[in-house]
Amino acid sequence: MSLIVMKFGGSSVGSTERMSRVAQRIIDKKLQGDRVVVVVSAMGDTTDDLIDKANEINDNPPAREMDMLLTTGEQISVALLSMAIHKLGHEAKSYTGWQAGIVTESVHAKARITDISPDRIFAALDEGNIVIVAGFQGMTDNGEITTLGRGGSDTTAVALAAAIHADVCEIYTDVDGIYSTDPRVVKCARKLNEISYDEMLELAHLGAAVLHPRAVEYAKHYKVNLVVRSSFNNNEGTLVREDAQMEQGMVVRGIASDKNVARISVLGVADVPGVLAKMFGALADNGIDVDIIVQSGVQDGKADFSFTVSLNDRQRALDVLSGIRSEVPYHDTTYEEGLVKVSIVGAGMVSNPGVAAKMFQAISEVGVSIKMVSTSEIKVSCVIAAGPVQEVIQALHTAYGLDTADTAFVGGPSERR
Amino acid sequence: MSLIVMKFGGSSVGSTERMSRVAQRIIDKKLQGDRVVVVVSAMGDTTDDLIDKANEINDNPPAREMDMLLTTGEQISVALLSMAIHKLGHEAKSYTGWQAGIVTESVHAKARITDISPDRIFAALDEGNIVIVAGFQGMTDNGEITTLGRGGSDTTAVALAAAIHADVCEIYTDVDGIYSTDPRVVKCARKLNEISYDEMLELAHLGAAVLHPRAVEYAKHYKVNLVVRSSFNNNEGTLVREDAQMEQGMVVRGIASDKNVARISVLGVADVPGVLAKMFGALADNGIDVDIIVQSGVQDGKADFSFTVSLNDRQRALDVLSGIRSEVPYHDTTYEEGLVKVSIVGAGMVSNPGVAAKMFQAISEVGVSIKMVSTSEIKVSCVIAAGPVQEVIQALHTAYGLDTADTAFVGGPSERR
Repeated sequence: MSLIVMKFGGSSVGSTERMSRVAQRIIDKKLQGDRVVVVVSAMGDTTDDLIDKANEINDNPPAREMDMLLTTGEQISVALLSMAIHKLGHEAKSYTGWQAGIVTESVHAKARITDISPDRIFAALDEGNIVIVAGFQGMTDNGEITTLGRGGSDTTAVALAAAIHADVCEIYTDVDGIYSTDPRVVKCARKLNEISYDEMLELAHLGAAVLHPRAVEYAKHYKVNLVVRSSFNNNEGTLVREDAQMEQGMVVRGIASDKNVARISVLGVADVPGVLAKMFGALADNGIDVDIIVQSGVQDGKADFSFTVSLNDRQRALDVLSGIRSEVPYHDTTYEEGLVKVSIVGAGMVSNPGVAAKMFQAISEVGVSIKMVSTSEIKVSCVIAAGPVQEVIQALHTAYGLDTADTAFVGGPSERR
Repeated sequence: MSLIVMKFGGSSVGSTERMSRVAQRIIDKKLQGDRVVVVVSAMGDTTDDLIDKANEINDNPPAREMDMLLTTGEQISVALLSMAIHKLGHEAKSYTGWQAGIVTESVHAKARITDISPDRIFAALDEGNIVIVAGFQGMTDNGEITTLGRGGSDTTAVALAAAIHADVCEIYTDVDGIYSTDPRVVKCARKLNEISYDEMLELAHLGAAVLHPRAVEYAKHYKVNLVVRSSFNNNEGTLVREDAQMEQGMVVRGIASDKNVARISVLGVADVPGVLAKMFGALADNGIDVDIIVQSGVQDGKADFSFTVSLNDRQRALDVLSGIRSEVPYHDTTYEEGLVKVSIVGAGMVSNPGVAAKMFQAISEVGVSIKMVSTSEIKVSCVIAAGPVQEVIQALHTAYGLDTADTAFVGGPSERR
């Protein structure tokens, strides 16, 4: 008898028919003899509808009251799912985040889970119930209702799985699992059987729609076995765990791309100790995520820096730089938009020299020049000009032997939390 | 500085514009220097929509899960109302029933409040907030979410007012207050300035749409001053309290009618001790409310009984009687539908002889015959055939000097909770 957490996103329970289908799926698991805890998101567009309603009344509503409002979405889901299970003749009990003992920081809209007291969950399981917990929400020590922000329901599922020592946490979504690259871009993308937490984190941009990075971090920290699988079929899905098994000859596990990249260059920065810390500290203080940083050699006591930020942050980053110019003197700034970052990810590349070289070769064969490069132990990223990105990804996919005839990808818009 | 509870029903907050108008009204009260606690129902049709959704999934949903589902309606209301108040530049905090410390019995769908711990309410008031509490809901000692059933938000308001020792509990609704009779029936119905709890309870049928009897009982028990007034204007409303001041010459305060009456007669019942207890015990056990009971004299050791029940309960009452016929032998049963109960209510009638006689006289002058009579200290009820009921009520209204030229009644469907 296993203890299993099953998480269903908003589109999986987007209608009463889908709700009933999910109920049957949960019951099937129970009938296998497992103890089942279910985490559910708000149905379909519920959250967006609530946000619209709030904005009709107040274009800048207090975060506390938004949390009060939005948490009703998941409460509606859990109650209805429980009713659907009862309709099919099985016992179920639904719980809000606070009822399930999910304690968070005293922050609204993006609280982190600090503790879970699963006593009520175990009591309900012991009574033979299927336990259904509202995702995305918790309560502070002071009894304030909070939400976990983007990817919140995934995080609820993983944190619950950790707290109750579940054997596995299954994330049901509208795709079959994690793919070697976006199957909408590369037709013969390969569904991965296994992937490690670190690889999954590096593939975040690829997988974000399927699995939120925060949930992966949580899973890594608490060593929760995660399975990503489709709520519409019984295919195996992808297992995310510490030591994912390497498939034959697969040095690179997956290829990710990010079209949302801007490069900023700061030219002629005085080469004085502490200058970099000041510059990137100021950017961080303003909530700007800097990705790749490249420094070219120092000349005449001056250095040139280039770094990438998300397209949305480009102007703000430039403003920050001009704001600290008195502390960090520089000659000029330039920027470039319309860039794409392409990354290959795989735990196997550590022990396989020549992986990066093969990447550069494959990209150059498509006739694309590389503007920036960044490497980590399990990743190589290249920034290229937007253009034949699809061909680049396809070329890399083929070069690393990832192509397969099997295209089990189920299309459609991905879920957001 | 007063401490005031204001309760707004679903139609008062039925749209975002109405929500904003209510917010302004609450702020006006605050600006007078009062400390304000607000209780709100679910917006407009929210509750009905949720019930429909539940029934799509399960035609017989568990009461526990219905409570989980329905309580989201009020949670949405309080969050949005708080946002509307913030939009107008004032501080407010919304609370669910459990957050406000409202503890109930362990019963779903119709729990009674057993305790209120208003610590958080006082703390929020002390911080200068307008406090907004979700009506209709509470939590058991075990942390289960419950609802209070019909009239639940009124009850929440009154119970909160009692717990925090509020100076007054104002029930805002879509009518101007309590009327001497239904202003839709009698054009010159008089709005009452004051009425006692007991009178209000006797006028329950008249007032049910405006004020739930359970809330009145609660107010009476804890001596909470209740004011019923319109959310659409600033008229004075009606004060409900222990010793309502008598207006000049007003022996009768109000006239109620109930068109939903059936008479059942049980003929030839053996006059044996315990027979009545068995008969009416069986009816009560089946949840049938018996109103007026009349026994005619005993003849040959047999008695005839007549009693009234609500029209909906008529068939069930007859079934119960035939089910206990072996224990309570009788000759036959008959019934009559299409009856109306007309009642005059007034604390003053105790010390004024001839009040009932004047009623019989007025009814006979309309040419209507009286079928059953029942009296209490502050009420006389007559059952008559349906027909010129409006004339009967008008005649009684005139006979007891209740007519007035002032018709400030605001029409429209009344709120249900």
